[in-house]
Amino acid sequence: MKTAARTVFKTDWFTVDALPQMGQKPYYRLTCNDSAVVVAQTVKGEVIFIRQFRQALGKFKLELPAGEINPGESPKEAARRELLEETGYNCRSLHLVGRFHVSPDRINSSVYCFFAKEARKMKANPRADLEIRVVPIPAGRFAQRIRDSWESISVSSVGFYQMAKIKGFLQ
Amino acid sequence: MKTAARTVFKTDWFTVDALPQMGQKPYYRLTCNDSAVVVAQTVKGEVIFIRQFRQALGKFKLELPAGEINPGESPKEAARRELLEETGYNCRSLHLVGRFHVSPDRINSSVYCFFAKEARKMKANPRADLEIRVVPIPAGRFAQRIRDSWESISVSSVGFYQMAKIKGFLQ
Repeated sequence: MKTAARTVFKTDWFTVDALPQMGQKPYYRLTCNDSAVVVAQTVKGEVIFIRQFRQALGKFKLELPAGEINPGESPKEAARRELLEETGYNCRSLHLVGRFHVSPDRINSSVYCFFAKEARKMKANPRADLEIRVVPIPAGRFAQRIRDSWESISVSSVGFYQMAKIKGFLQ
Repeated sequence: MKTAARTVFKTDWFTVDALPQMGQKPYYRLTCNDSAVVVAQTVKGEVIFIRQFRQALGKFKLELPAGEINPGESPKEAARRELLEETGYNCRSLHLVGRFHVSPDRINSSVYCFFAKEARKMKANPRADLEIRVVPIPAGRFAQRIRDSWESISVSSVGFYQMAKIKGFLQ
């Protein structure tokens, strides 16, 4: 960065930083921990989405499994852990799709997107307290399922799915 | 909302709100103005992307034209204005693709996505102070151009592009 950022507000999950701008009010951005998101394909060819309640919106959203990378954890380890915690699925191998930004206008953190190959159900249910419903979507019915979930689909998850497809991981 | 949000930090562009949680620290979310994003197709069949510097990241990103909805402005008016301001293109008509959320884990605001039909260059250059480069991408070469811009592409823009496609606006 060319200019020094100054933290003006802090929570356990993010800070608000002010970036000085010549002759203007500062530019405010959020800095969070980086996170990992997983496009996991099951042995049957489905991609695993989850339906979860999002407190920030007060709404249920259909999204890919994802979460923050813990201190000392690699992005890949975080991807495997989040997949297992949120869906009960494990996978044979994980491949980096890319490192992306979701809200480049406001949030200064990266999202590492992984493709998980040959995902298999290991646990009957994910942690009950997470209140997450697992929604496996057959790759061939993706567009139809998105049309059916138009109000609740996360547009970033559609973007990550598409990136995995463009990279050649999904047909 | 079931619980009352309390504003704990405020800028001209967003507020940080704390949502009380039983027996836990509050959940912090951002509330911004809603915004509009445009998937604009030119009369030649290209989709208009822009390359712009994002201060929050200190990087250039390839994105769809977008911006905040001003007070008193409809989402559609904002879409037309942002398209013209950022790219110099006007369009024959605008069609709502949908109302989406980009960072459902943290940001409480909606993004109205529009498809702009028959976009035509009206002005030689967008406002010079915005430092935006217009990047028209032929629909048939979208995947290749994304692969070429892997480091800088906005994953949400890929999501919006895909939503316009699933809705049938783009082939």
